[in-house]
Amino acid sequence: MRIPRPLTDLIESFQRLPGIGPKTAQRLSYYLLHVPQSELDDFSDAVVNLKKNTVICSICKNVSESQPCDICTDISRNKSQILVIEQPLDLLAIEKTGKYKGTYHVLHGSINPLDNIGPDEIYISDLLSRVSQSLSEPEALRAGGQSQVTEIIIATNPTMEGDATAMYLNKKLKIENSKLEITRLGMGIPTGADLEYADEMTLTQALEGRREMSQGE
Amino acid sequence: MRIPRPLTDLIESFQRLPGIGPKTAQRLSYYLLHVPQSELDDFSDAVVNLKKNTVICSICKNVSESQPCDICTDISRNKSQILVIEQPLDLLAIEKTGKYKGTYHVLHGSINPLDNIGPDEIYISDLLSRVSQSLSEPEALRAGGQSQVTEIIIATNPTMEGDATAMYLNKKLKIENSKLEITRLGMGIPTGADLEYADEMTLTQALEGRREMSQGE
Repeated sequence: MRIPRPLTDLIESFQRLPGIGPKTAQRLSYYLLHVPQSELDDFSDAVVNLKKNTVICSICKNVSESQPCDICTDISRNKSQILVIEQPLDLLAIEKTGKYKGTYHVLHGSINPLDNIGPDEIYISDLLSRVSQSLSEPEALRAGGQSQVTEIIIATNPTMEGDATAMYLNKKLKIENSKLEITRLGMGIPTGADLEYADEMTLTQALEGRREMSQGE
Repeated sequence: MRIPRPLTDLIESFQRLPGIGPKTAQRLSYYLLHVPQSELDDFSDAVVNLKKNTVICSICKNVSESQPCDICTDISRNKSQILVIEQPLDLLAIEKTGKYKGTYHVLHGSINPLDNIGPDEIYISDLLSRVSQSLSEPEALRAGGQSQVTEIIIATNPTMEGDATAMYLNKKLKIENSKLEITRLGMGIPTGADLEYADEMTLTQALEGRREMSQGE
C-alpha cells in the first residue's frame, strides 16, 4: 500500500527539521489530517512568510521586523556593552533573565573547521568593524544615539566550537583596542544541579571560578 | 525584547502539534530561518494541500488519493476479511508486515466516554452497514468485484478505549450475523522484550494465549 502523495510530501518536509525522525514526521502529518483547513492555512502562511517578513538587523544581526531592531534603537539600552552570542535563541535566554541592559551581537554560528565554518562564514567581521567604528568615530556615534564600546561579553556556548570562537574573538578584539574589557560568561555548576553528577571539567571550572561569600549570601 | 511576529506565528502553529512543546516549537521556528525560501515554499504547499488533495475512501475510510482507495480496488485482496483499526497509521504498521492480504476498515478513533466520543462519532455504523450489505446482497457484490465478508479481525489498541471499542463491535457484529468469525489480535510479550520488565497484565495475557509448539519451532 502506497502512502498518498500529499502525505508523503508533508512527511518529507517534517523530516528535514532537526530532531524529527521518520516516525514523528509520520505521526505529525497524519495528525494534521484531523485539523480544520483554516488551521492548516494559518500554519502554511506562517511558514511561507517567516523569512519574507523578517530582516537581519544591520547593527546586531539579530532577527527583527524593523531595521535596525528594537534593541539597537532602544535609548534605554547601554550601547557601550556588547554581548556576543551564537544564535538568536541565545539572545532570548539572556533577555529572559532581565539582568542585562546592554546590546547584542549575534554571530549566527560558531567557528567549526570540521563543518568548514571559518571566521568569515559568521558575523565576526561585522562585530570587529562595529567595535572599531565606535572607537574611531565617537562623535559621529554619539550624534546617532550610539556610544563608544567599552565592554564585550563573550557568551558563546561552552563547547569546542564556542571556545574556539571565544578565543579568536578575544585575540582579534585585543588587537583592535587593548583597553577594551573582554569578559566571558562565568562557568561552574548550574543551579539545581547535583554535585555527584557534575563532570570533572565543570567541577574544575567551578573551583577556578570560586567567589568569596559576602555577608548577605 | 519582543520576538518578531512572523516567528511567534510559526511558533504557535508548531505548538499546536502533538508532542511539541514551547521550547521545541521555538527551536524549529528559529531553525527554519536558516533554510532557503524554496524549501519553506515546499513545506507551506505540503501543509495547505494535505487535505485538499486527499479523500476518505468511501468503503474502508482510509486516507487516499483515489476514490475508492488502492486497497479496496485491488482485485488480489481478499475481500472476505476486514481488519478493523483505529487510525490510518495502524494500517501502515499492518501493511509493513506483508502478512495480511485482506481489506481494512479505519474507525478514525475509539470509543472514549471521557472525551465524549461514542460509537456514533467514529466510523462504526459504516462498518456495520458494509458487513450487512455484503451478507444480504452477495450477488450484487460479486458483480462489483466484492465478496461476502466472513471474518472480522479487530485490531484496536490494547487500551481501555480500544478494548471497549472491540467489545462493542463484537456485540453489534454478532447481532448482524452469528456465523461471522470475529477475532482479535493475539496479545502477549512483544518480540525482543525482557520478561523481567513485562507488566502483570501482559504476562497474564501471554499465559492465557500460550500455544503448543510445533516440531519446526
